[in-house]
Amino acid sequence: MLTISEIRNHLDNLTKPQGSLGQLEELAAKLCLCQQTLKPQTKPRQIILFAADHGVVKEGISAWPAEVTELMIDNILDGGAASSVLAQTTQTELKIVDIGSLSQNKKNCKFFRCAQVAKGTANLAKVSAMTKEQFEKAMRIGKEEAEEAVNNGAKILAAGEMGIGNTTAASCLSAILSDEPVENVTGPGAGADDKILSQKTRIISDAVARVKKNSNGNIVENIASVCGFEIAAMAGFYIKAAELKTVMVIDGFISTAAALIAEVLFKGSRDYMIASHCSAEPGHKVLLKKLQLKPLLDWSMRLGEGTGALLVMPLLDGAADIVTKMATFESAGIKQ
Amino acid sequence: MLTISEIRNHLDNLTKPQGSLGQLEELAAKLCLCQQTLKPQTKPRQIILFAADHGVVKEGISAWPAEVTELMIDNILDGGAASSVLAQTTQTELKIVDIGSLSQNKKNCKFFRCAQVAKGTANLAKVSAMTKEQFEKAMRIGKEEAEEAVNNGAKILAAGEMGIGNTTAASCLSAILSDEPVENVTGPGAGADDKILSQKTRIISDAVARVKKNSNGNIVENIASVCGFEIAAMAGFYIKAAELKTVMVIDGFISTAAALIAEVLFKGSRDYMIASHCSAEPGHKVLLKKLQLKPLLDWSMRLGEGTGALLVMPLLDGAADIVTKMATFESAGIKQ
Repeated sequence: MLTISEIRNHLDNLTKPQGSLGQLEELAAKLCLCQQTLKPQTKPRQIILFAADHGVVKEGISAWPAEVTELMIDNILDGGAASSVLAQTTQTELKIVDIGSLSQNKKNCKFFRCAQVAKGTANLAKVSAMTKEQFEKAMRIGKEEAEEAVNNGAKILAAGEMGIGNTTAASCLSAILSDEPVENVTGPGAGADDKILSQKTRIISDAVARVKKNSNGNIVENIASVCGFEIAAMAGFYIKAAELKTVMVIDGFISTAAALIAEVLFKGSRDYMIASHCSAEPGHKVLLKKLQLKPLLDWSMRLGEGTGALLVMPLLDGAADIVTKMATFESAGIKQ
Repeated sequence: MLTISEIRNHLDNLTKPQGSLGQLEELAAKLCLCQQTLKPQTKPRQIILFAADHGVVKEGISAWPAEVTELMIDNILDGGAASSVLAQTTQTELKIVDIGSLSQNKKNCKFFRCAQVAKGTANLAKVSAMTKEQFEKAMRIGKEEAEEAVNNGAKILAAGEMGIGNTTAASCLSAILSDEPVENVTGPGAGADDKILSQKTRIISDAVARVKKNSNGNIVENIASVCGFEIAAMAGFYIKAAELKTVMVIDGFISTAAALIAEVLFKGSRDYMIASHCSAEPGHKVLLKKLQLKPLLDWSMRLGEGTGALLVMPLLDGAADIVTKMATFESAGIKQ
C-alpha cells in the first residue's frame, strides 16, 4: 500500500523547491495514489460520450431543438465537433453511446454503440422522467462501458454527454442532491435567453417541488424522476471506474451532476475523480464543492461533450512525467 | 488584414453554441490574430532558458546558495529538471543560454550557449546590479535568440529562467515599474522562511528607495540598477518576438517582470503575449494586471525554469485545432 506521505516524500526529493509545482504536484500525487505507483500512466485513455434526448425540451427550455442531438452525434463521428477535434489533439480514444436519443439511425461504426433505453425521457415537467428500472438499465450500460475500457487497457477514463435539454435535468438533480435553491443551480445552458431561462427556472422549481413532495425517501427514485439517460449512464460509468480503482476526469456541469450521483450511490467514488474545469453554469461550482473537487481550469466553458475533460488530458501527462522522469537531489548532486 | 471580428465570426460559425468554449476561444482568437490566419500553428516551438547569478545572494535573501544555478543548468541539460521533463512532454525544443552565471564550465552541447555578460551581477543591495551597457548587451543576446528561433521555424516562443536570487531582482523591478509598495510584490521565492523573507523585504525596500532617490529619469538605468542578466535577456527576447509578430508564452513572476520591461521599452509587445499562469508569488498578479493579461492556470506554481509556459503548450494546441479542424454549422447541416 503506497501512502500519500510516501508519495509526497518522493515528490519532495525531486530537483525543485518543495511544493513549487503547486497544483501540478497535487495532480501527480493523486495519479500515484489512485494507481498505487510512483510511475503513473496516463495513456492509453478513453472517453465515452453518452447521448440522449429529454422529453422536457417540449416545454421550451432550450435554445436548440431536440433534433440537434442526433445531428451532433453524426458530427462527432465525422470528426467535426469540438470533442472529436480535442480527442484527436490529446490522443484520447472517443466512443459514442446512444443511450436514449430520438434517433432511428443505426450507425455501423467501431466508435458507436446503440443502446437506447428509450427514445428520450418522459417530460419531467409533467411526470417522472424515467422509471427506476430505466435508470438502473442506463447505469448498467455505463458500467459496461467503463469495464470494457479498462479491460482494453485504458489508464484514464472520461465521460461526456450530448443531449439537448440536459442542463434542465442537471439543475433539478443539483437542487435535489445539494439542497441549494433552484436559482443558485440554474443557468443559460447552451444559450438560453432571458425568456427561456425564466421558463426553465419555473419548470425546474416545479419539478423539484413535486419530487420532494412525493418522495418516499428512496433516493434512486427521486434521482430517476428528473434524470436523463446520459446522466444515469455517466453515473454508472463513474461508479464502475471507482470500483476498478481507475482515475476518471470529470467534465462540466452535467458530468459533475452524474459524478455526485455516483458519490451518493457508491461512497468514495470521488477519490478517483479529477475535476477538469469549473464551467460558466452556476450550479457547477455548487456540485464541485459538494464533491470537494478543485477544478484544473476556470475557463467559463459550457459546451459539454467532454470538451473540458479532453482539454486537460495533457496536463495529466505533465503531472505523470514530472513524478516519473525528474531527477532527485541526490542523483543530480545538489545538497538540500 | 484579418480582424478580430472576422475571427470571432469564424468561431461563431463552428458547431458549438456561441462562446461556449470560453477562454479556449479567446486563446484561439489570439493565435489567429497574431499569426493573421484562421489556421494558426503551434508547432514547432522553442523555449530558451536564460541562466544567471545575482550578487545580492550574499545578503542572505535566498534559501539556496548561488552554486545551485550551475548545478541546475547541468540538471536541465541532463533531462532531470522539471523544465526538461515538461519540454519533452509537450514537444518543445529547449535551449539554455548562460547569460551570466558564476560557472567556469564550457559545455559543448547543441542545446547550450555560453554568452556570459559577466560572472553574476553586482550586489544590488550596495550598488547598481549592472551598467546600462551590460543591460543592453544582455537584451541584445535575448533578441538574437528570439530571431534565431523564428528563423528556425518556431511558431510559438517561450522564455524561462534559472538564477538563485532572482525573485529579489524581480520584486525590485515590480516595485519600480508598478509603483506598488514593496510588501505587495515580495514573496518567499524558491522557499525563503520568515527570517529570510524579512531580510529580503528590507534589501528590496532599500534598493528601490535608492534607485528612486538617485533617478535621473532614465528608465533603462533604473531597470538596470536592480535587474538580472537573465531578466534583461528575456526582455530582449520578448521585444524581438513582438517585432517578429510571434506569439510568446510568458512563464512566472520573473518572466512577467521581463515581459513588463519589454512592454515599457517596446509598446505593444503585450499583444503577442499569452500568460501561462498566475504563480504563488504575490507580485505576479500585480504584473499581470499591469500587462492586462489573463493567465490560463492559477496553480500556485513558483518554480520558474519556464515550467508554467511549457505546461500550457498543449492547451494552445487545443485552441489551434478547434479553430482549424471543427466543422461549421453549414457543413454539418445544422440550422442555427
